[in-house]
Order: sequence, then C-alpha cells, then structure tokens
Amino acid sequence: MNIVLLGSGNVATHLSIALDAVGENIVQVFSPNIKHAKQLADKLNTQAINNLSEIDSDADLYIISVKDDAIAEVATSLSHIDALVVHTSGTTDIKVISSIMAKAGVFYPLQTFSKAKELNFNDVPLCIEATAVEELETLKILAHKLSNKVYELNGEKRKVLHLAAVFACNFTNHLYSIANELLVKSDLDFDIIRPLIAETTSKVLIDLPVNLQTGPAVRNDESTMNKHLAMLADLPELQEIYQTLSNSIKLAHK
Amino acid sequence: MNIVLLGSGNVATHLSIALDAVGENIVQVFSPNIKHAKQLADKLNTQAINNLSEIDSDADLYIISVKDDAIAEVATSLSHIDALVVHTSGTTDIKVISSIMAKAGVFYPLQTFSKAKELNFNDVPLCIEATAVEELETLKILAHKLSNKVYELNGEKRKVLHLAAVFACNFTNHLYSIANELLVKSDLDFDIIRPLIAETTSKVLIDLPVNLQTGPAVRNDESTMNKHLAMLADLPELQEIYQTLSNSIKLAHK
Repeated sequence: MNIVLLGSGNVATHLSIALDAVGENIVQVFSPNIKHAKQLADKLNTQAINNLSEIDSDADLYIISVKDDAIAEVATSLSHIDALVVHTSGTTDIKVISSIMAKAGVFYPLQTFSKAKELNFNDVPLCIEATAVEELETLKILAHKLSNKVYELNGEKRKVLHLAAVFACNFTNHLYSIANELLVKSDLDFDIIRPLIAETTSKVLIDLPVNLQTGPAVRNDESTMNKHLAMLADLPELQEIYQTLSNSIKLAHK
Repeated sequence: MNIVLLGSGNVATHLSIALDAVGENIVQVFSPNIKHAKQLADKLNTQAINNLSEIDSDADLYIISVKDDAIAEVATSLSHIDALVVHTSGTTDIKVISSIMAKAGVFYPLQTFSKAKELNFNDVPLCIEATAVEELETLKILAHKLSNKVYELNGEKRKVLHLAAVFACNFTNHLYSIANELLVKSDLDFDIIRPLIAETTSKVLIDLPVNLQTGPAVRNDESTMNKHLAMLADLPELQEIYQTLSNSIKLAHK
C-alpha cells in the first residue's frame, strides 16, 4: 500500500515506523514544520513536505495523525482525493472526516508513545472504524499486519475507551508524581517505591483490579486514614485527592 | 537464628517463607486461629500454636506481623522475654514495642503481597529500624540475606513512605477499577487496556513520572476534558475524581 502520513508526532512516528517495518510504503510525510517532517521522513527513507498542496494524490491511504482540533483542516485539504482517509484520534468522531471525504475511517492505537522509547507494535491494541464495509476490511487487514490486538469499535465505544485510558494511564501517572513529591520532601528516593509500582501493575495484568484492592480505605481503617490526612495538613490539594479517592474506594467495596 | 513468627497473614506468609529459604529457623507460628497457624507452619515444617502462653521464650527474634491495632497486645504477651521483638508495619511507631520490650525494632517490607502469587524477595525493599545499634546491626544482616534493597529509616520517613505507597499502589489500583467499570458498562473488556497499563508503568520504572505526564489535563485541552465530564454526567462521583485529578495535574504542570 502507498501511504501518505500527515503528522510527525509520537503516534505518527511509531505508527509509520511500524508500517514501514511490515513492508508498507510511506510515500510522503507531511508536517507544517519541515524540520519535523524531514526528521521522520529520513527514518522512513521517504519524502518530507510542509505544504498541503504538494501532497501526492495517488496514494491508497492517507493517515491524519495530528492534534484533534487540526484534523478537520487537514482533511479539508484532501477533499479532491478519492482514497481512504483515516485519523488516529481516540476522541474525534469519524464524521470529522466522513463529512468531507467519501471514504473515511479511524485507526486508533491505544498506547502511550514516547519518541525516545521503542515499543513492540504487536501488543498495541488497534481500534478501527470505517464508514463502509470495504474500507473496514482494508483497515482490518492492515491492522492485523501490525498487531495481534485488533478491535472494531464504533465512535461511542472508542470514546469510552479513551476516557478509561485517562483514568488508567494519565491519572495513575499523576499519582506516581504525587508519591514522588512526598518522598522527595522527606529525602527519600523514588527508587524505593518502584518495586511496589511494578508489582501492583503486574497483578492487574492477570487479575481484575477490584479483586486486588488493598490499603486503609478498603479495610475501613479510619485510624490510619486520619493519620495520613494529618500528615497532609499543609497540602490541602493532596488531602482532597486522598479523601476523594478513599471515599470512592469505600463506596465501591462496601 | 531461631525465629518465632506471630501472625499468619500475607506479610507473615511471604516473609517467613523467604526467611526459611535463606536458612533461618522459624521455630513457631502463632495465630489466634489454629487453622491459619497450621496452614503456614506446615509450609515451614514447624510448630503451630494459638495460645500466646505456649510461646518459646528462647528464640533470638520475634516477628509480630499482625494488624496494626493488635501489635501492642501481642507485644505485651512477650514482655517476659529478653530478645529482639520487631513488627512489620509501615505506619506503627516503634514505641508500640519499645515501651514494652527492651530490644525493639521494625522490619517493614514495602510490597503488596498476595498469598496466591509468588514473589522474588530479592527485590522487596526492606525498611529497618531499631532502638539500639546492636539490634539494628542484627536486622541489617538479616535483611541483606533476604533482599538487595535494605533501607534504614526512622519512623517519620517510614510513615511518609507508607503514605506515598497509598497514592502509588492503593489509589492507582482503584483507578484501574474505575477504568474497568467504564469499559464494562460499554461491553468492553479490561484486556483492551492492559497493554497501556503495562507500558505506562514500564516508563515510570526508568524515568520520573513528572517527565511522562500525558493526557488532556497536562495539554490544557479543555474541549476534551469537557467531553469527558459530560460522558460522566450520570456518575457524579467519577466526575469529582476526574475534576480533582485534572486540576491537580494542571497545577503541577503550569
């Protein structure tokens, strides 16, 4: 397949490298910032462009992997093209593309990507959606080349998944930050807590979290909770988080 | 060393099995519930007792690994013994023992234990404390036999560590539960989000979480946050958690 990639961020980078590795042909990388486009295009041995008017209109697939609020604008610039156009966003409706293009789809990898960290794409869940059966089939074949975990999801389910990911990924990472903040204030290193974090996660990879809840809140151990809240007396924002999450745990397990 | 173990819960089980494996001699396992005591004592090929008056008073070390609010009572039953007595609690002051016993200490493994899941004790951070140098040395030698990660921490630091662990372990597990709840409501399986959880954690094991924060809050993406809050309209408790944690992320990264 000849593919034009529009975007050069973390998702665009990891996705295009994975596509290249399975033999797909990335014919162009577009970014408004030509330096960013070149950086990625060099890795893929392909052409970098920073002007939407230069886009090759004969490709088989156009992947728009830009910020959510820029998807519509990029899609509009492709309106003269008669090929499948997909975005890679968890929260954006397929209509943002299908209202402009005849063949529209979504190709959403549910993973947290960093440019610096390599990742095995085989394990990345790929959520696909398309406006027509033929296009869905195209995306399904492509997705299965990249990953063992392919899910056909409509927009509603994809949005729920994205929301769940905010709780399971973004919010948990912030709780790790808070733990680190508390440790640093007492001259303790984050290293001391890393084995606990690793084990907590390793459990949830083989069991459901509701079966694994530990700590003072699920035990209704008011004495320990009160001690903890007292320790946070100078940090009202953390007190609020402690209280809110403890209440939620108590409610879920009562 | 001849060791009497008082307790038969998760910590008592994992700790005593690890001690047995490095050649220490567990001479008795006490639990008020003789069935529990026997279950563990059988694994250790040792004696089970359920009466504190039967305790061997000639051992070198007594490990109290019971619920926090029962430590004092168990320690009192040992007051006739002239040997080192430690507890394994993250939140309990050493004074709970040292006010009763001449030789007191703390031997706190910072890990989440499940009876069903085996665990390499080499990686378990062991936090030790003692009222005198000689006893601290005894605990240090014992701890290093079990683990590569031995920390001498006073009670204040140990309590901060325990609080940090609540944020990094108990609260994150509850966020995983919430993610699962949202997925299940939309007929989605928790499996779909497990690779994301694994990758989020794998990053934090080699970098600091503050460098890894992603998601709508850190991007100040109000449009996505408002969509998420709208999706939680029927779940005010989850809305509150979403709002509280998003505000905290914004504050930490502004």
